[in-house]
Amino acid sequence: MNINVGKQAIGEAHKQLSNWGRWGNDDQIGTLNHITSEDIVAAAKLIRRGKAFALGIPLDQNGPQNGLFGGRWNPIHTMLATGTDAVAGRQDETPNIRYADDAIDMPVQGATHWDSLGHIFYQDKMYNGHDAINVDSRGVHKLGIEHAKDKMVGRGVLLDVARHKGADSLDDGYGISNDELDATARAQKVEIRKGDFVIIRTGQMERCLKARQWGGYAGGDAPGVKFENCYWCQEKEIAGICSDTWGVEVRPNETKEANQPWHWVVIPAMGLTMGEIFYLKDLAEDCAQDTVYEFFFCAPPLVITGGTGSPINPMAIK
Amino acid sequence: MNINVGKQAIGEAHKQLSNWGRWGNDDQIGTLNHITSEDIVAAAKLIRRGKAFALGIPLDQNGPQNGLFGGRWNPIHTMLATGTDAVAGRQDETPNIRYADDAIDMPVQGATHWDSLGHIFYQDKMYNGHDAINVDSRGVHKLGIEHAKDKMVGRGVLLDVARHKGADSLDDGYGISNDELDATARAQKVEIRKGDFVIIRTGQMERCLKARQWGGYAGGDAPGVKFENCYWCQEKEIAGICSDTWGVEVRPNETKEANQPWHWVVIPAMGLTMGEIFYLKDLAEDCAQDTVYEFFFCAPPLVITGGTGSPINPMAIK
Amino acid sequence: MNINVGKQAIGEAHKQLSNWGRWGNDDQIGTLNHITSEDIVAAAKLIRRGKAFALGIPLDQNGPQNGLFGGRWNPIHTMLATGTDAVAGRQDETPNIRYADDAIDMPVQGATHWDSLGHIFYQDKMYNGHDAINVDSRGVHKLGIEHAKDKMVGRGVLLDVARHKGADSLDDGYGISNDELDATARAQKVEIRKGDFVIIRTGQMERCLKARQWGGYAGGDAPGVKFENCYWCQEKEIAGICSDTWGVEVRPNETKEANQPWHWVVIPAMGLTMGEIFYLKDLAEDCAQDTVYEFFFCAPPLVITGGTGSPINPMAIK
Amino acid sequence: MNINVGKQAIGEAHKQLSNWGRWGNDDQIGTLNHITSEDIVAAAKLIRRGKAFALGIPLDQNGPQNGLFGGRWNPIHTMLATGTDAVAGRQDETPNIRYADDAIDMPVQGATHWDSLGHIFYQDKMYNGHDAINVDSRGVHKLGIEHAKDKMVGRGVLLDVARHKGADSLDDGYGISNDELDATARAQKVEIRKGDFVIIRTGQMERCLKARQWGGYAGGDAPGVKFENCYWCQEKEIAGICSDTWGVEVRPNETKEANQPWHWVVIPAMGLTMGEIFYLKDLAEDCAQDTVYEFFFCAPPLVITGGTGSPINPMAIK
Repeated sequence: MNINVGKQAIGEAHKQLSNWGRWGNDDQIGTLNHITSEDIVAAAKLIRRGKAFALGIPLDQNGPQNGLFGGRWNPIHTMLATGTDAVAGRQDETPNIRYADDAIDMPVQGATHWDSLGHIFYQDKMYNGHDAINVDSRGVHKLGIEHAKDKMVGRGVLLDVARHKGADSLDDGYGISNDELDATARAQKVEIRKGDFVIIRTGQMERCLKARQWGGYAGGDAPGVKFENCYWCQEKEIAGICSDTWGVEVRPNETKEANQPWHWVVIPAMGLTMGEIFYLKDLAEDCAQDTVYEFFFCAPPLVITGGTGSPINPMAIK
Repeated sequence: MNINVGKQAIGEAHKQLSNWGRWGNDDQIGTLNHITSEDIVAAAKLIRRGKAFALGIPLDQNGPQNGLFGGRWNPIHTMLATGTDAVAGRQDETPNIRYADDAIDMPVQGATHWDSLGHIFYQDKMYNGHDAINVDSRGVHKLGIEHAKDKMVGRGVLLDVARHKGADSLDDGYGISNDELDATARAQKVEIRKGDFVIIRTGQMERCLKARQWGGYAGGDAPGVKFENCYWCQEKEIAGICSDTWGVEVRPNETKEANQPWHWVVIPAMGLTMGEIFYLKDLAEDCAQDTVYEFFFCAPPLVITGGTGSPINPMAIK
Repeated sequence: MNINVGKQAIGEAHKQLSNWGRWGNDDQIGTLNHITSEDIVAAAKLIRRGKAFALGIPLDQNGPQNGLFGGRWNPIHTMLATGTDAVAGRQDETPNIRYADDAIDMPVQGATHWDSLGHIFYQDKMYNGHDAINVDSRGVHKLGIEHAKDKMVGRGVLLDVARHKGADSLDDGYGISNDELDATARAQKVEIRKGDFVIIRTGQMERCLKARQWGGYAGGDAPGVKFENCYWCQEKEIAGICSDTWGVEVRPNETKEANQPWHWVVIPAMGLTMGEIFYLKDLAEDCAQDTVYEFFFCAPPLVITGGTGSPINPMAIK
Repeated sequence: MNINVGKQAIGEAHKQLSNWGRWGNDDQIGTLNHITSEDIVAAAKLIRRGKAFALGIPLDQNGPQNGLFGGRWNPIHTMLATGTDAVAGRQDETPNIRYADDAIDMPVQGATHWDSLGHIFYQDKMYNGHDAINVDSRGVHKLGIEHAKDKMVGRGVLLDVARHKGADSLDDGYGISNDELDATARAQKVEIRKGDFVIIRTGQMERCLKARQWGGYAGGDAPGVKFENCYWCQEKEIAGICSDTWGVEVRPNETKEANQPWHWVVIPAMGLTMGEIFYLKDLAEDCAQDTVYEFFFCAPPLVITGGTGSPINPMAIK
């Protein structure tokens, strides 16, 4: 497609791609509605070898947050009870069980995560026409992640764009076109179907991990899909789109008029579920080896009431 | 079985039920080793209707933590960006995207969760002979939940003991015997197999939720399995045991010599994975209706480096 | 005074008591401007016996927050390093110093604290005419507590209203009139002066502590000043007003049209600094004994950038 | 002095400088006992100009923690209610007051702070002979900062070593000898007395702030006192020692046998109170101008039950 990305193009995409009302005025899950029970049953048949891949990155202080975006921080893990306490005899009377306990404090979108549909607004509105002020300091009162608690199950497809292009990783700033996605699928001999979770591999995370520095990963530049991708997702009627980058779409942005213009459309207009910071190395290597790029996908969010998303550890099962 | 529960019985159970070294000296996942690839493939065939049940409770300040145990608290959810900010124009220059963001701060075992094998010690040791001092203020350096990141997948079986006994819920203090578990399975016409995730329903959570008060739920009295259950789990070679209570085993304890005597054995001696505070109402009603008590089970933990467990939202898929 | 408390009275008080512009359009500290260097020098002369009283309550999970107001919680104190770790030898190589370390997570107004002038709005405005939207999810961008970092020093006066009335504590719902404040001061033979920090004792906190339950303390009913007190504070030109209650003013509110009507005026119209949840038992007993109700007062806030207030441990020094 | 710094010298210093039992077996405050009521009255007379200096650094994400030491992080400030919420009308029914609220989550020693005597151990012991295992995951059960809640009041003396030596700042690794402290005092015409709070300025913080990067400030190299300083503090019978560095003593350490060898002695043997990360620029400039290096000092800790210290905003009042 040939789009002059900017506020006007965003406005036009909103008109053409709006799913407001498509699944009722009370709908809270958007494109997850594309998944049918039959799709889940069919996806289960993709479990042929009994091999599960964990797509979540470790939650610890070595995470990718460098303070570039929104005051996010890496997970803070603190212990509430320890083995050293136990061995010192500190637990032998009360509670009279030797144990360890702990807590975690983290931005819900700080590591591998889902975005909820309450994460992004367009002008004063959320997906399905809800007022953005439904998201206040007490939480996301419409379109929170809790509505998707049993919906993140279905067929997953890996589009390994980096490998398809013969690269370890795409460069930051490299924009993936719709044609390239289609070409990757064709080369991989995998079909994108209605209700799929499409997972795009750019190799960026592996590049950062290999260099042992997250640099500008979370909040900075990245390879990713071009703005035009919103049309592709709508046409394919996929349930969700995921990537090994922090924001799926290419950065620097294709326009100076908006930060992350693709986001302005896919969440508030389409209600498209989005997964970010996915760890894809092991899955991608396996797919390259057995040339099977489809699998059963199960990535339940935590039921965070009023959450803009949830940290997750998605499972791809072949 | 006729066990005089106390420190001596705990010691004997440790000897008889130890799995130390069974899967190698480096093993970090214990009974999860019982699950084979074939088991996963077979479990996938249980997805017949394409219906998923979310077994996680909501994470918010209405959670069950009342301060009874270990200084745990209910999840604290704070917003880092809001729709009210957006509508007030506070985001239009920087970051120039209208969005909401948030964070969550919670004990990993404060709501629906897995225990890792690093959660409980016996004397100065952890499962597989590791020294308990491997768990210090910086985390669980052995047997942390991260080792199970791709292991919580397989066949799930619901044993609806409450419904089997014709009760809405079992009383606090009611101890479920091994015979009762077997009888429930027989009545439900479901077999317990090696590598299963066995989920026991007592109805306690539903009772608390219906009464709109969690009272002494988290840390207090509860129905649950008797101490003898450790022998049952070992004999059946199950992968994990889960329940709708905060601690699986009956409380008040069967002895005054130890708090939660069953815990003293199943984690450090056997390396048994345990799931707690599961929400079972919807799943149980469905099973009662279609009389199918087995399903595909997928409950990935967050990859919390050095975690004593993880909050989860388990999926039971039929 | 005879005020029909309600939105109209609030509006009138705003007009009459406004200090907007009084200390310049850039002023960020309001009535703290009443304190002069001479006042501080004079106050220092009140240090005659060299005895200091700490007016802060302990920060721990036994605090007064019961979830009644605004999602506040009691301080969460977690350890980052412990003596049990040290004794177990966990610190002997790295960092090679045996130590303990910890963190605290708390609402800034959850225990003894100052309110900043950014804490309360009237309609869409803050004190001195700033737009309320200057307070967004990233902090208090105008009138934050950091502006008062070196201002909480001067003469303190205790008005022990409870003791003056011969009561251990005033009842919840008891409204203290301006006349009663004046009568208390006269009986105590202490003069209220421009630039003073006036500290009002109702005895409520001691009542709650004695009963070993905070019941509805933080967010509930309380004895306190009547709405008319805003006129008294303005006339006396005091620097700040403090109390042993959670909100200084009487609750239940004197009107159904507004929650905490006195707050609607004193902070946004007058720019009056307010201290809440002060522990006054020891100071009050000492004042009763030596009949000296004035003292040097030093209660530095933490320099929380963009804070709506700060936890404090105020010092009264006689 | 000519000390061969190492474990042997540490052991010898422990013997010679021990204050165990000096103020009774129950003593929890160590050298703060040096301060008498008369000292406080005398210190009050140093308030001559009515000018207060705030010595606390801002608490925000621009703080000095870079993850170098102990998993500490910069303060996380989150809003619980905002002006944008208020203006959007989100507070007009419940709570029916337009307000902002917030919380702070921080290591107690992450910014300007006091160490409590429970912060450092020697072998298995704390100050005054308490077992180090009294510090477990639930807090500092002996020698916590709460015991000093009304003790941080007295005479303060600034020793501006950097200015005395004609430097903007001392270099990292520069060790300040006892002789230099004495020479600085003499040059400043100020006497160090029993019960003083001695505040040492190295200029390091100003150097870091000027360069707009905290680099290795918190946890890294620094100018500071030499190990021999423990003898000086004991001889002078000072109440506390403070500095504009993260750890008062020189780094790199004077030995490879111990990290921060001076800490090994002054806290557990002597019970010396220590203040770190003090902001001294404004105070130092004022002292240089009026040549008065003594002042009233009031730096109340928060009453953190079982705290290893407390964030503070110390007041120097001249």
